[in-house]
Parts: sequence; C-alpha cells; structure tokens
Amino acid sequence: MDTKKVEVIKDIHEENRKLAHKINDNLVKQGIFVVNVLGSPGAGKTSTIIELAKHLAGETKVYVIEGDIESDIDTKKLLELGIETVQINTKGACHLDAPMIASVLDSLQFQEKGILFIENIGNLVCPAEFEIGEHIKMLICSAAEGSDKPYKYPVVFEKANVILLNKSDLKKYVDFEDAFFTNGVKALNKEAPLFEVSCKTGEGFANAALWLKQVVQNANC
Amino acid sequence: MDTKKVEVIKDIHEENRKLAHKINDNLVKQGIFVVNVLGSPGAGKTSTIIELAKHLAGETKVYVIEGDIESDIDTKKLLELGIETVQINTKGACHLDAPMIASVLDSLQFQEKGILFIENIGNLVCPAEFEIGEHIKMLICSAAEGSDKPYKYPVVFEKANVILLNKSDLKKYVDFEDAFFTNGVKALNKEAPLFEVSCKTGEGFANAALWLKQVVQNANC
Repeated sequence: MDTKKVEVIKDIHEENRKLAHKINDNLVKQGIFVVNVLGSPGAGKTSTIIELAKHLAGETKVYVIEGDIESDIDTKKLLELGIETVQINTKGACHLDAPMIASVLDSLQFQEKGILFIENIGNLVCPAEFEIGEHIKMLICSAAEGSDKPYKYPVVFEKANVILLNKSDLKKYVDFEDAFFTNGVKALNKEAPLFEVSCKTGEGFANAALWLKQVVQNANC
Repeated sequence: MDTKKVEVIKDIHEENRKLAHKINDNLVKQGIFVVNVLGSPGAGKTSTIIELAKHLAGETKVYVIEGDIESDIDTKKLLELGIETVQINTKGACHLDAPMIASVLDSLQFQEKGILFIENIGNLVCPAEFEIGEHIKMLICSAAEGSDKPYKYPVVFEKANVILLNKSDLKKYVDFEDAFFTNGVKALNKEAPLFEVSCKTGEGFANAALWLKQVVQNANC
C-alpha cells in the first residue's frame, strides 16, 4: 500500500477549540457577541440573519461572516442591505473552523459593539463539531425539511442554544407534525428555546430578536 | 504540541474507489444496478425511492440500503411497503463509504435482478466525494431549498447523473426562480437530465422512472 508518514494532531478538535476560545476572548474585548448560525442547505440562514438584523436595527450593530463553499450570493445580498459582511469560501470544505474565522477577522472593523453572526456551511452534520468562537449556536430548521430531523441529526440539535423553525408558512403544505418535531427536540435538548418563524411573513422574529437581545445583555458584551 | 505518528493512506479516496468498483462488479454479476441517492436533509430522498418503486413495481425489483446517522425511521417506512431494506447507521459520520456498503451487502438477498437504491446521508457536501459502488448518482433537490443551490454546492451538481427537483408543488410558495436554477445546473452539468417531481402529488415520476428503466436496460444489468 502506498503510504506516507505524516504528523497528525492528536486532537484536532482540541486545537481548534483553543483557537475558538481565543477568538471569542478577543471579540468580547471589542464588545462583540458571536452567533454561529447552523442549518441545512436552504433552511433560510441568511434570511434569518436579515430578519433579526431588522429587529436589532437602531439598537444593536450587526456584523456577518458568510461561509459558503462557493459563491458570494448571500454576501452581496447582505451588503446591499448595508450590513457589514465578509465572505469565506471554503472551496469544498464542509464546515467552518476557527482558523478560517481568525483569517478574516481583520477584514471587519468592529467600530461599534454588536452581534457578529457567522453563517456556517449548509450542513447538519460536520459544522456541529467545530467551535468557531461563538457564544451561542443558533440552529435554523425549515418546516419543509419535515418533522423527523431531530431523530436523524441529533448532535446539532443537542448542541444548539436556540432553535428557529423557519418557513412555518409552509407547514400546512407539508404535513409537518408539530408534536413529533417538538418531542424529538425536547428529548435531546431541554434548554434551547424553540421559535417558530417565517422569513417570508416575518412572523415570530420579534420574539426571537427579543430573546437574543436579552442573551446579549446578560453576556455583558 | 502533543502529536502521534500514524500511517495515513496516501489517497484514501483511491482505496475507497477500488473497493467501490469491486462492489459494483459483484453486484453487476447478480444483475443489480446501483443508484447512489444524494440530497440535503429533508429533500425527499426516501419518498423519491418510494415513488420510483411504485412505477417500477411488477417490472423491476427494488432493494434499498438506507444510510442515516441515527434512527431507522425510513427503513421502517420502506419495510412496511414490502421493500427489502437494510439500515446503516453511521453514528456521526457525514457520508457513506464503500467499506460501509461492503459490510451490509450480505444482509440483502439479491434473489432477483433489480435496482439497489443506496440512500446516502442528508448532506450536499461530503457524500459527493465518495463512490460507494454506484452506476449513477441521483441528486434530489427540494424546491423549498431555493433556486441558488447549484451555485453554492457545485460539486454534487457536477457529479450527478440525474437531478430530480422535488417538492415542485411548493414552488409557487417560495419564489423559486426556474431559470436561475436551470442555468446554474446547466453551467455545471450539461449531461444530467433534470426532472421536476413532487412526492406529494406524484407528478413527474412516470417520466423519471421511464428514464431510469432505459438507463438500467442500457447498462445490461
């Protein structure tokens, strides 16, 4: 077998975690609260950030790091709305990690205290395993994905600090089973609040934004 | 830095590919055509297999290997419909690989020629990189995910041999932009046919199943 010897970091997660904590410490010093935004492709991560930014406008400055394998479609959308955003293209990598975040932080001028949303790659599996400097993980689900996702992708539901069930306006068209979904979530995670929202109608975002503001306030950022 | 030396296969993909080809050779000898079913969480991979199985019934035997991180929800659904199915739980791994398939093949009795659908983990990134013994990759997209997915997850669109745009009944509720999606797909992949389908209404599956039957016939399985 054609092999080569390489040095492998014993616990790559541990190294990543150390850098993530360092990133968080530095951002806290600048008054920045960090939200790691997770979800499947097309769950509505960018639209959720935009809706929350509307509710935070005038009170809390919003910054975004936009993670995508390719393209800058979402970054353009955010910049057009006047939201300070930088793009990371992972060129194939299935999740963001702390070194990627460290490499772009200088591109954002944190002239005001505020919230930094980091939109992770659309993937319910790998991003859940890597800290990237966040205070909280925000999981965005789409009602159109069906109500069985907590049972099939438990880790991301376990690790979420808040869960937004987006596209709630589609529930009636997709036979979404509320109790099955909620029971699945609660079996994995009793702490995370669950907000039902719709980026299309704006429903539910006032409550989600209020919760976020309180969390940021309590974090003393 | 706490490190240890380990032997790493120079090209883990190459080893995987060799085993995948061996699996395919063995299945071809038994008259089995293999479809690697890819898509995001909640795109409708299992429902698509069920709809195709309905159209193949009486003509082509259907077997399924059901890949999930956790749970056997979909396997139960398929078994209730009388479809011979075995479950792989990857316990955290974000994609199926050839060794996983090799480890469960003995559990399926291929007493008739037919089609083996292998439902991969719901993930648009990692599964695209690993062959698992397939003749073709079938990509299932959900209209509810939005029309920008080819631009954001190009590799899986490049590698697909056929693309099914599922949940077409939801298009009118989600401002799906047909031309943007189709242009994105065609820029990456001019060969793969694109079928618009709905597991909810059954629309489009007659054509998709007809295409599949012809491909299987041409493959001489």
